[in-house]
Amino acid sequence: MLENKLNHDAGDALKAAFRRHASGVAVITTRSPEGAPVGFTATSMTSLGSNPALVTFNVARGSSSWPALSAATHLALHMLGGGNVELARKMAADHTKRFLDNDWKESEFGLPVFQDVTAVLFVKVREFHAIEQNAVFITEVVSGLMGSDDGALLYNQRGYFTPADTAL
Amino acid sequence: MLENKLNHDAGDALKAAFRRHASGVAVITTRSPEGAPVGFTATSMTSLGSNPALVTFNVARGSSSWPALSAATHLALHMLGGGNVELARKMAADHTKRFLDNDWKESEFGLPVFQDVTAVLFVKVREFHAIEQNAVFITEVVSGLMGSDDGALLYNQRGYFTPADTAL
Repeated sequence: MLENKLNHDAGDALKAAFRRHASGVAVITTRSPEGAPVGFTATSMTSLGSNPALVTFNVARGSSSWPALSAATHLALHMLGGGNVELARKMAADHTKRFLDNDWKESEFGLPVFQDVTAVLFVKVREFHAIEQNAVFITEVVSGLMGSDDGALLYNQRGYFTPADTAL
Repeated sequence: MLENKLNHDAGDALKAAFRRHASGVAVITTRSPEGAPVGFTATSMTSLGSNPALVTFNVARGSSSWPALSAATHLALHMLGGGNVELARKMAADHTKRFLDNDWKESEFGLPVFQDVTAVLFVKVREFHAIEQNAVFITEVVSGLMGSDDGALLYNQRGYFTPADTAL
């Protein structure tokens, strides 16, 4: 049952509540205007209807990817499986080391695409809305590639998991 | 590894890719202008920074909750645990039967709040953006309540799960 004690510290209440919420894990990549590969781990990616096929995600406008992302016309959205936990960690760590390994190739629209993921969607940016220090991106799917099936990667309680074997 | 076969059917590519993506499960409630409790299961809820504490979610504008939601000033966002799978199913089924049980109470801002969830955030609506037949809501946390801890409920491969016991 819910406690009676209302937490009026909004930031603390949000953090405490979202530690109890699981998120799917994705990697989003693009090219900078100068052509450099840019990307990051995102736990906010979600669909917004399939006709037209729209996908949204949130990003901090102070992030290292922001200059490239805010200028991008196309993105590659990577679905991650349990075998991709190191990719998820790498793409959330030092941004200068994210494309040093031989685990990605240039693909549609010249986008850098990690090869060992469970699915990729190529999208065009429709719009983004700046809100405080963040932005909500709205993108439209152009095409997709499937990889090998592997239990979905999720983030919960500050750790990475796959779903339990048995459905509820 | 990724297949070479690009799927140019955008809706089909989106559905196939998102079956490999896990989502946290939430229930969002409000009151209609006439005072009736209204709510639905959402798999798109995500945070947008903690200072200020913002939460976004997506909703179909054709849904039964839309008339109340589009007029609402405040909402209750419920985090669901593994023990709430029947609540998740109920709030995604026949909308006339969602508030017939004795599992909710009136709470802050007069909002209907399900009592046996893992956390609740009370939010005010800041803005929403209509996109095609859907909308992206941006809300700001006012306060929160914690419930009992219980493995997060997630939706994946068209079923409900909790995270596996062991982190990766």
